[in-house]
Amino acid sequence: MNKVTDISLAEDSFISLHVQLHNQLRQLIHSERWPNASRIPSENELTSHLNISRSTVRLALQQAELEGLIERIAGRGTFVAYTLTKDHQRRLIAFVTGGIDAENHLLMLSGAEQEVRALDYQIVFSTAKNQEEELHILERVEQDSIAGVLLWANALSTRSPESALTRYKQVPVPVVLMDRKIPGFDCDCVTSDNYGGAKALMRHLIDLGHRHIIFLTHDIFEIFPVTERYRAYCETLEEAGLSAVEPWVIGQRGVEISATYAVQSSVDKKSLELQQIKDYILNAQPRPTAIFAMNDWLAVLALRALKQLDIKIPDDLSIAGFDDIDLAMHLEVPLTTVAQNPFAIGKRAAQLLLNRLPRNSTHTTLEVIPTELRIRSSTARI
Amino acid sequence: MNKVTDISLAEDSFISLHVQLHNQLRQLIHSERWPNASRIPSENELTSHLNISRSTVRLALQQAELEGLIERIAGRGTFVAYTLTKDHQRRLIAFVTGGIDAENHLLMLSGAEQEVRALDYQIVFSTAKNQEEELHILERVEQDSIAGVLLWANALSTRSPESALTRYKQVPVPVVLMDRKIPGFDCDCVTSDNYGGAKALMRHLIDLGHRHIIFLTHDIFEIFPVTERYRAYCETLEEAGLSAVEPWVIGQRGVEISATYAVQSSVDKKSLELQQIKDYILNAQPRPTAIFAMNDWLAVLALRALKQLDIKIPDDLSIAGFDDIDLAMHLEVPLTTVAQNPFAIGKRAAQLLLNRLPRNSTHTTLEVIPTELRIRSSTARI
Repeated sequence: MNKVTDISLAEDSFISLHVQLHNQLRQLIHSERWPNASRIPSENELTSHLNISRSTVRLALQQAELEGLIERIAGRGTFVAYTLTKDHQRRLIAFVTGGIDAENHLLMLSGAEQEVRALDYQIVFSTAKNQEEELHILERVEQDSIAGVLLWANALSTRSPESALTRYKQVPVPVVLMDRKIPGFDCDCVTSDNYGGAKALMRHLIDLGHRHIIFLTHDIFEIFPVTERYRAYCETLEEAGLSAVEPWVIGQRGVEISATYAVQSSVDKKSLELQQIKDYILNAQPRPTAIFAMNDWLAVLALRALKQLDIKIPDDLSIAGFDDIDLAMHLEVPLTTVAQNPFAIGKRAAQLLLNRLPRNSTHTTLEVIPTELRIRSSTARI
Repeated sequence: MNKVTDISLAEDSFISLHVQLHNQLRQLIHSERWPNASRIPSENELTSHLNISRSTVRLALQQAELEGLIERIAGRGTFVAYTLTKDHQRRLIAFVTGGIDAENHLLMLSGAEQEVRALDYQIVFSTAKNQEEELHILERVEQDSIAGVLLWANALSTRSPESALTRYKQVPVPVVLMDRKIPGFDCDCVTSDNYGGAKALMRHLIDLGHRHIIFLTHDIFEIFPVTERYRAYCETLEEAGLSAVEPWVIGQRGVEISATYAVQSSVDKKSLELQQIKDYILNAQPRPTAIFAMNDWLAVLALRALKQLDIKIPDDLSIAGFDDIDLAMHLEVPLTTVAQNPFAIGKRAAQLLLNRLPRNSTHTTLEVIPTELRIRSSTARI
């Protein structure tokens, strides 16, 4: 037992002695110079050989024990803790997102990071441009030493063919979906209360006297949050004795309109989306008095298109969105919208994931995070 | 040599046989069940024992070789490639940011991720709320198997005392700074052309006839981008025979105004920042005709404060910002501002970092990414 000579502390360092000792213990153990399950020097040996106080030694050992580096076994001594040090290499959580360009993604990521860090895990961040890339990342998790996956799925993933579903199901670590479900893939999922938020918004519009309300969306319609918002649109109208009409679908066929794309398209006078909205409104019989845009970016496009037609918001027509992006309250006409809590989604998804490590349950859950209607100037009594 | 019995392929799987074989080789090697530098079964052995075609075996071995899992040595056989498999565990790049709440952070992260992924590295994402947390993350890189660090430094880091500087210098892996330099810490850094962008903006204001121009900032003044923008402010005025005046400093002492905070403060009629801007303008002698806000969020605060005073933008006063956030073009008065390219900053920083792996140079570089003046309605001829 001369392991104690592996340690040397610097008296003149600005790093305090107990931190130095703790750091060196960690390094000796992680480098496997002190092998797993081997006995480490006693408090007495450390105190006398290093010529430092017993309380300094004790503090360093306590911290190493808390970190899971060492294990004290009464009557036998202190040992390098095998399982925990080995396990350390797998304390990585993948955060996979199909594109990331909106503040909501950022907040989801921040929420997840805060949560995993508290348990000494780290986030490995990856973007996947399409479903094939997404699956490729998921199929590499073992090779990449990933313990679990937080997934904001690609739009395409929500209408996966059986072959892709099989590949999702074969991911060898727990997966928690954020925001979007993948039908047929049974795993934990955390979403906003899309239904409740959209319902509150529709009631607000109906209470203002609106009877002809349009649902404005892009062509990717199968995504869970969109189907929930549309379901609330239809059901709230029905409850009020009114009829849903065909949604107005803008953008290219089969394409999701991203924030980056929408911000450009909304200021491009010749953009496809502005033209589509104008065509819809000019041909509508009867003309709607309110538009529920599936998200705030589509609401911004609608605001722009209507301005070009000299239709006044909210006097001639009310517009409402979903998300409460930073922009919403700063628009020329501040936007009535439904606020989500993406930070809470990321945080809660990470909690569910960490609870599954090690894998110990087959029961999956769908968690719904509350949303909040925020009434601003873009909606008015008819 | 009965390693071949470690492999079993499923004929009825939807995964093709060569992919199955490649995946199993990877798993056997990464798990060290097939030890480093040990010989693996020959093409003949694999073909006959697995009862599959030679071309299938050849394809799987080719891919394993491309991935660096195995090495063929002419006349001797095929072996597990020691160095490459070991090295794989360290293909992690830390992306550390002191808070993340703005689309610029997101774009920087995306740019970095795209670049490191192309070289088969992955981003480990961490936020640090303060300098101590930042240093703590940096001091753990070895334990966390991080090969290099991309750092968007905390504001406090830019005025680090000697003891903190020592700790930055001791980080045992290469570091590349994004956006902000840490004075005294000699490492690669990628920033925007803050000076050039601010200069173009100041020239625009001066060309419009403005002679009394204010620099609006928060109290964290030492940050590299801010000092560069302020330097351009002073020097452009001087070149035009005009004088710089004391900057208007808003917010709390020593606090950086984040995007999240600004978006709230700008719509809170009682906010400290709106009141401070109003106090400045009411007491100014002479009243300025233009404000150069250090970033777009401060410009939004100025727009709000002036609106409350019924000062018309741009008729009574011009306002310009820096950043070109999504909001800028959608404000009631679209904002003249300087666009940065945070995606390019993240991408270029990652390139510089990857070039340093393994560490092979002590020469550090400061890279400057071009900015672009975007003139909108918020600035006008006097």
